[in-house]
Amino acid sequence: MVEDISAQLDLETYVHQRLRRAKIASRSLATLSTDVKNMALAQMAQALWDAREAILTANREDVVAAQRAGQPAARIDRLLLTEDRIHQMMAGLRQVAELADPVGDRLEVIEHPNGMRMEKVRVPMGVVAMIYESRPNVTVDAAALCLKTGNAAVLRGGREAKSSNVAIVRALHQGLSECGIPSDAIQLIERVERDSVDWIIQAVGLVDLVIPRGGAGLIERVVRNARVPVIETGVGNCHVYVDAFADLAKARAIITNAKTQRPSVCNAAETLLVHQAVADAWLPDIVPALMDLGVEIRGCERARDILSAAGVERIRMADEADWATEYLDLILAVKVVDDLEDAIDHIRRYGTLHSEVIVTEDAVAAENFLSRVDAAVVYHNASSRFTDGFEFGFGAEIGISTQKLHARGPMGLREMTSYKYIVRGDGQVRG
Amino acid sequence: MVEDISAQLDLETYVHQRLRRAKIASRSLATLSTDVKNMALAQMAQALWDAREAILTANREDVVAAQRAGQPAARIDRLLLTEDRIHQMMAGLRQVAELADPVGDRLEVIEHPNGMRMEKVRVPMGVVAMIYESRPNVTVDAAALCLKTGNAAVLRGGREAKSSNVAIVRALHQGLSECGIPSDAIQLIERVERDSVDWIIQAVGLVDLVIPRGGAGLIERVVRNARVPVIETGVGNCHVYVDAFADLAKARAIITNAKTQRPSVCNAAETLLVHQAVADAWLPDIVPALMDLGVEIRGCERARDILSAAGVERIRMADEADWATEYLDLILAVKVVDDLEDAIDHIRRYGTLHSEVIVTEDAVAAENFLSRVDAAVVYHNASSRFTDGFEFGFGAEIGISTQKLHARGPMGLREMTSYKYIVRGDGQVRG
Repeated sequence: MVEDISAQLDLETYVHQRLRRAKIASRSLATLSTDVKNMALAQMAQALWDAREAILTANREDVVAAQRAGQPAARIDRLLLTEDRIHQMMAGLRQVAELADPVGDRLEVIEHPNGMRMEKVRVPMGVVAMIYESRPNVTVDAAALCLKTGNAAVLRGGREAKSSNVAIVRALHQGLSECGIPSDAIQLIERVERDSVDWIIQAVGLVDLVIPRGGAGLIERVVRNARVPVIETGVGNCHVYVDAFADLAKARAIITNAKTQRPSVCNAAETLLVHQAVADAWLPDIVPALMDLGVEIRGCERARDILSAAGVERIRMADEADWATEYLDLILAVKVVDDLEDAIDHIRRYGTLHSEVIVTEDAVAAENFLSRVDAAVVYHNASSRFTDGFEFGFGAEIGISTQKLHARGPMGLREMTSYKYIVRGDGQVRG
Repeated sequence: MVEDISAQLDLETYVHQRLRRAKIASRSLATLSTDVKNMALAQMAQALWDAREAILTANREDVVAAQRAGQPAARIDRLLLTEDRIHQMMAGLRQVAELADPVGDRLEVIEHPNGMRMEKVRVPMGVVAMIYESRPNVTVDAAALCLKTGNAAVLRGGREAKSSNVAIVRALHQGLSECGIPSDAIQLIERVERDSVDWIIQAVGLVDLVIPRGGAGLIERVVRNARVPVIETGVGNCHVYVDAFADLAKARAIITNAKTQRPSVCNAAETLLVHQAVADAWLPDIVPALMDLGVEIRGCERARDILSAAGVERIRMADEADWATEYLDLILAVKVVDDLEDAIDHIRRYGTLHSEVIVTEDAVAAENFLSRVDAAVVYHNASSRFTDGFEFGFGAEIGISTQKLHARGPMGLREMTSYKYIVRGDGQVRG
């Protein structure tokens, strides 16, 4: 038991040391010029390429270990690096270099009647910690977006990707050092014990923002235990509501895209809500079409009755858990609703404030839905799959916020900054 | 023991019931027109006046109880209501009615190349919970700012003000009902057991934002235990740094104002940092002047030596705790620093990211300080006392944020809103 406690203390010391170094580095990052940051991004890209052999060797270790541990193929694919994927990482770094630097933007100027000039100016957050899972490309993305916004990055990647991440960050440090930027600006937490997450998210005063990226379990754990500010990301139990006055061709294209184009991501649709006025005619058409694309359907009683009457059998009954589940898979829950009100009620009960869609040609119903549904992005006649920083023109994305504080929906560079007020006076005092 | 547990469960049920009602009310508040909200604010003012006798009677109960409990005079004064103070509350409500309504503001329009129109629109947070201490006027302020921004308000005031708050909220409900707004829009948590705070701040899905207002202990407790988003407010360990090239007349006016004009508030100065080049000449001048105004001085060794050599004796030695304390009282810590760098280091170690001041005629030193000191508001040649929503022209203030997420510094109406993206398409799907 004594040994356990001492190992615990060691981990705390290790993490806090890394965070303190990040904090100190963040001070010089905050005032770096855009040119220097862009040069560093270019050098980081070059350094990745120069280190490609070491990175691929390290990645092979991770992949072999994951295979031995019997990880599913999809997970191993997420972990796998190739020369081509290193090229993509490099392209990502160069793309971030091309984006406008938000730091220093003057957001507002207030002239006080007493002559003081008050400016609201965009500044970095300070230290941004990312807690994420297996993809090693997140390491590069997060480091790039933090550097561009003048933040120190604390990266706590998944255990499976540890060797890859160590090799990648070594290369990134090389790139930084060629521009005279302290390598402490990018901290990889190499000790991937479960508790190292807790030491990060409870380090009040050392961490300015935590962004968890990963499954619902990881996010829930971070939100539950964090004592520093967190942006909750990603859980998307998204709905497509097909209204009585829907153009059913659009409805078909949208639900097909939202469900099947990339089912494993947070902006994919999980539940189809169909107005009763169109359910009889449309469900026997769309459901077999989706099933042909490999989608498993779980239906409410009314949906099953309609489908059964039309000869579509063996539809599993959806239960309470189905309405609440983000499948991230080729499974779709289907519910017949009485009307728009019923659809909104369902979304309020089960939605995760991510992306919600109405398909209708009725402008009044559309505006009703758009104004009353509380979600980061609400769509009229378009697929939920567009909830994405690149689609929104941000040129980058650090995650998709499902909370309302600070940033909502896709987060790009601006969302990784704060602001401060700079007040210039001439001796003014308050009366 | 069984009884204790059941009392606990009861409290949870009570709080959750109130929160759920607030959540439901928040949905209709979100789409109220500005006119209706303004009418309700006017009716609330009138209702306060109509209920003044009941409010003053209830307040007398609270005041008598506080006196019996031996509360200090300052605290009783904060609790006390008079007809004049009710007038001030009414004026506050009418002032909020006159402010622009931020809800519905279009913050940005993005045209997607595929023809979708994406609008970023300001929306209410939903349910905003305020946790505060003795002043009953906060009840009226918070209710008004929440209503104007379309948020449901959950008000958890201090135990000492319970009767006053009950009487005030009854009047506010009267005002709401005259405009057809559900009284659930303003929820007073009447059970003021300590644990009711925890049930509020852990109600994920029912509370969108918690703003604690009060002493450091209250804020620390909320931040430590919250599982819903919090804006940390108010702790201000603010510094005035008097540089080698300061105009000492300005320095004198500024430190006098920042320390003595209203010492009990978060934007008052707590530590004076003096460059060694001016310390010998200036400290023997400013310190006795401040002492004449009733300020107790706690000095570093160098400051005490300088003062003692000039015949100013009996200055208490400042210790580590003094540098870290927000006195909120007529006490000032004084430190001689080597240079600007030393001043910035001190502020980094002990500051609370609230308001920091440099007094200098050296433009380079000023810009250095303004850009490198990390605080909500940084001042050049002006008093820290200006960190205030009204001084910033917001026309209202719900608190002063000392964190970097969402809102920083004074928070007005806009800071009580979030945004969502509304996307209008014509059947677009992602390729």
